[in-house]
Amino acid sequence: MDFGQFKITGQKVNLSKFKTEFDADESDSDLKKLREKLWEEIAELQEKLYAENKQSLLIVLQAMDAAGKDSTIAKLTRNLNAQGCKIHSFKKPSKLELSHDFLWRIHAAAPAAGEMAIFNRSHYEDVLVVKVHGWASDEKIERRYQHINNFESLLADRGTKVIKFMLNVSKEYQLSRFKRRLDNPGKHWKFNPGDLDERKLWGDYMHAFEVAIEKCSSDASPWYIVPAENRNFRDVMIASTIRDALREMNPDYPAPEFDESAYTSDSIS
Amino acid sequence: MDFGQFKITGQKVNLSKFKTEFDADESDSDLKKLREKLWEEIAELQEKLYAENKQSLLIVLQAMDAAGKDSTIAKLTRNLNAQGCKIHSFKKPSKLELSHDFLWRIHAAAPAAGEMAIFNRSHYEDVLVVKVHGWASDEKIERRYQHINNFESLLADRGTKVIKFMLNVSKEYQLSRFKRRLDNPGKHWKFNPGDLDERKLWGDYMHAFEVAIEKCSSDASPWYIVPAENRNFRDVMIASTIRDALREMNPDYPAPEFDESAYTSDSIS
Repeated sequence: MDFGQFKITGQKVNLSKFKTEFDADESDSDLKKLREKLWEEIAELQEKLYAENKQSLLIVLQAMDAAGKDSTIAKLTRNLNAQGCKIHSFKKPSKLELSHDFLWRIHAAAPAAGEMAIFNRSHYEDVLVVKVHGWASDEKIERRYQHINNFESLLADRGTKVIKFMLNVSKEYQLSRFKRRLDNPGKHWKFNPGDLDERKLWGDYMHAFEVAIEKCSSDASPWYIVPAENRNFRDVMIASTIRDALREMNPDYPAPEFDESAYTSDSIS
Repeated sequence: MDFGQFKITGQKVNLSKFKTEFDADESDSDLKKLREKLWEEIAELQEKLYAENKQSLLIVLQAMDAAGKDSTIAKLTRNLNAQGCKIHSFKKPSKLELSHDFLWRIHAAAPAAGEMAIFNRSHYEDVLVVKVHGWASDEKIERRYQHINNFESLLADRGTKVIKFMLNVSKEYQLSRFKRRLDNPGKHWKFNPGDLDERKLWGDYMHAFEVAIEKCSSDASPWYIVPAENRNFRDVMIASTIRDALREMNPDYPAPEFDESAYTSDSIS
């Protein structure tokens, strides 16, 4: 499957032209089979990445509330080696975090050589929610796009590949997810009345996403706008993109650090 | 006293034209008096910086071995509020640190709002010792100047003023300090035979300093080349530069967060 139409590398973005639900040619059961295969290959590539201990992969997930970030991560990580893949959820910044530049807490969580990291929300919040609410001046937001690009290029120079996913859902879909949370007492803890206030700013959020995705994407560090309402398709698209990135990084087991001719299973005791 | 001749804000640098020992007009005892006055004013300004809790000051110290970094810091910090001024000595990077980009450990140590930080060695090692020994390619070093400028501008945007001092001594002066260490058994622990190997690369180090100072200096984030052999002059120049920076930052006590008319020393019990 080709997901090129969802990949942004610096071009202008009009989110209203992007589907939130994708009619895949494949049946749901085919998508699920494909997903399993992709996860297996990712796990193999991750083991090599970890053993090689040189490159890193950073996966950024952004979305409106209830778009499925948590379930995406839960599924994605089930098949990975947890030791080599750290997940960071960035919440409302603490007082300490706010007393630093906005990238300080993000940089601290960057993946080391051999590691993968998944960011559930990220430095992009500082040009999304912060922009929508006007918590920083336009000029400051403008500078932040540049700081983000500088930061991501610093990571790239160290060998960290950065890929970014926006889980794209419609306003109606979000409402149906909120309702589902309220209809199910076991999901009440996930409902936050404040989310309804953010929902009123939907258009502003879409605009902030469009600008951020355009300004902070490149061939080296693309954004993917994922039609996220069909969850099987979503999972396949994300897994496939990660698999492709890992293939391109082409990690390999390192050469052993001992003289292989001097040590054999017969010679040691 | 005017130290403008030692301030670099992007111009080309020829270190052989910079004095390592400065004949001040002032007597030693006058310099010492001046130093005390400066330290007092810095302490007052630092208290305001800390109370204001908005801006930060980052002081970077770089020099050849035995040029006096430790004694500079010891003197400088004696009069400061230690709670608001953190000192970080950057040694040879650990395995964990090397598994990240070169700015990762530096960023983590950046001063928070209200704080001062003093870096004893810094991110500049990655374009000094690393360049001299060819541990990174020329192209990588070239990119690092850019990453350093990007990083310092990120800090500046958050309200962190960055000033950088190179303690400038001659090759002969260094030798006299090494000999002093060997002549004094109590100073033997400070002598490292490896320092003699680095000493052989003196010219390469001077060149690396010249390039780094030119490429990574600006009005906002200047370098100062301190004639460091006369220690009284050195201390006065550094204290004076820090005092001027703090004055320019103009920190002030914050407005109280309570209604001052509602609380008086008479009304509370």
